[in-house]
Amino acid sequence: MTIREYLAEQTKLIDAELDRLMPPEDRPPATIHRAMRYSLFAGGKRIRPFLCLESGRVIADGTPGLAAAACSLEMVHTYSLIHDDLPALDNDDLRRGRPTSHKVFGEAMAILAGDGLLTHAFQVLGQLNGVAVDRRARLVEELAVAAGSVGGMIGGQVNDLEGENQPPTPELLESIHRAKTGALLRVSVRMGAILAGANDEELDALSRYGEHIGLAFQIVDDILDVEESSATLGKTAGKDAAQHKITFPAVYGLEVSHRMAEQERERAHAALERFGARAKWLRELADLIVHRKA
Amino acid sequence: MTIREYLAEQTKLIDAELDRLMPPEDRPPATIHRAMRYSLFAGGKRIRPFLCLESGRVIADGTPGLAAAACSLEMVHTYSLIHDDLPALDNDDLRRGRPTSHKVFGEAMAILAGDGLLTHAFQVLGQLNGVAVDRRARLVEELAVAAGSVGGMIGGQVNDLEGENQPPTPELLESIHRAKTGALLRVSVRMGAILAGANDEELDALSRYGEHIGLAFQIVDDILDVEESSATLGKTAGKDAAQHKITFPAVYGLEVSHRMAEQERERAHAALERFGARAKWLRELADLIVHRKA
Repeated sequence: MTIREYLAEQTKLIDAELDRLMPPEDRPPATIHRAMRYSLFAGGKRIRPFLCLESGRVIADGTPGLAAAACSLEMVHTYSLIHDDLPALDNDDLRRGRPTSHKVFGEAMAILAGDGLLTHAFQVLGQLNGVAVDRRARLVEELAVAAGSVGGMIGGQVNDLEGENQPPTPELLESIHRAKTGALLRVSVRMGAILAGANDEELDALSRYGEHIGLAFQIVDDILDVEESSATLGKTAGKDAAQHKITFPAVYGLEVSHRMAEQERERAHAALERFGARAKWLRELADLIVHRKA
Repeated sequence: MTIREYLAEQTKLIDAELDRLMPPEDRPPATIHRAMRYSLFAGGKRIRPFLCLESGRVIADGTPGLAAAACSLEMVHTYSLIHDDLPALDNDDLRRGRPTSHKVFGEAMAILAGDGLLTHAFQVLGQLNGVAVDRRARLVEELAVAAGSVGGMIGGQVNDLEGENQPPTPELLESIHRAKTGALLRVSVRMGAILAGANDEELDALSRYGEHIGLAFQIVDDILDVEESSATLGKTAGKDAAQHKITFPAVYGLEVSHRMAEQERERAHAALERFGARAKWLRELADLIVHRKA
């Protein structure tokens, strides 16, 4: 089975679990539940839930609650996309090839749908069935820190906003991406490992893997924004430059950016060494992230 | 000591704990931490944390983590105010006598500051020191449900938005307020009780108290919006009518609304009967809520 086939299979499993965990589309007030599901089921690649599942599987088989925990990450990721796309932030009309939430449901509902997804993610973690309660509280803490304002996703978003039109230094670039996309990818790996009972060394190794693929993911995202068309990406291409966003190609040029992504891929592999064959899919995911075209 | 004096004393304690729990104003990215603190320390009456503290004290003395849990409620309340005030929602320029977050920090930062406060509330609960982990996970679940889209605060906000210009029926009115303000007030009481180890009967009784003061609070809020000036309220008066919001005075008239608030006050007292003298301050708070002028 290729990694693409395996990802497609896992995506079905994740989507079924998301469907189970989300309020039905007709549950009152129906508008917001339609809006929450519209963005959640918009063809996302489910990288974060996949990381959580695979990281848990590297440590142990059959961990209860793993799929639900994985889904909480996709809820947080989706909320961040809805809010990022708002007119006051990136003002994007297109996401994954479809109109963004506020274009379909209006700004007020898009704000509330994002709020609802963030809140629901924590509800899912608070309610995890069959999971020792100490692990539940730990997951809540990990996710909140990674999504938060101090070194987490929201903090990265603020840095990104304030970084527009600032001199694009390597330090600024790294601090933005470590927080904005890196923290959530890293915690995806960590949550799976924690839930499956990883010891400290295992958790450290998997966290390092998460950091390297996080950086690789962002570098490649920035490269694709320059090299690919909107049709391929399913979102507006060339927006980074138009918005004077600080990106890896802007700081290092395209050639060096490509080399950096490759280096992060190799470091991700190295971090997985101790896990042998169990980490097969995590390794192949690192390769896919760096070699993808969209 | 009068209830007003006691509230002022407890507000100091709550504010000190909030200050301890929040990232400092100069913690990078500083803008968002300034924005989060700007709204959090804006002269709020701290009713929700007070309810949590007092409800816990009715059950037991010296419950660890009670003050931090109380503060998580104020973070969620404040996030909801920031987002409600946004141009896309209520479009309010004034809150507690000061310019609203988006007037001071801009819309993008106000959206992110709200997101940050909501996220931080769950971080605080995930990290509660000295609290049995099963209670931590339970509090996360309770807060997420009360703040969420199904019968919780976000759901009420959606109903409120969609209720504008709809026929103002008693059923619509009750469903909006039970969710929009009621759920968070009720869970404030519940979280304190759960943390302090309340049994099922005690938790039920306190929940009923929470429901009745929640309804009383909203009825009086609607009455004040009609009867008082913006200067007294510290927010724009008469906005409900201008926005065709569905309110208790609009549905029942002012006289019946006053009588309903009084009835809820009496029911709140009745729910506290079993707790005797320990519930003194909860009783007096019910009286204050109904007899306040702002």
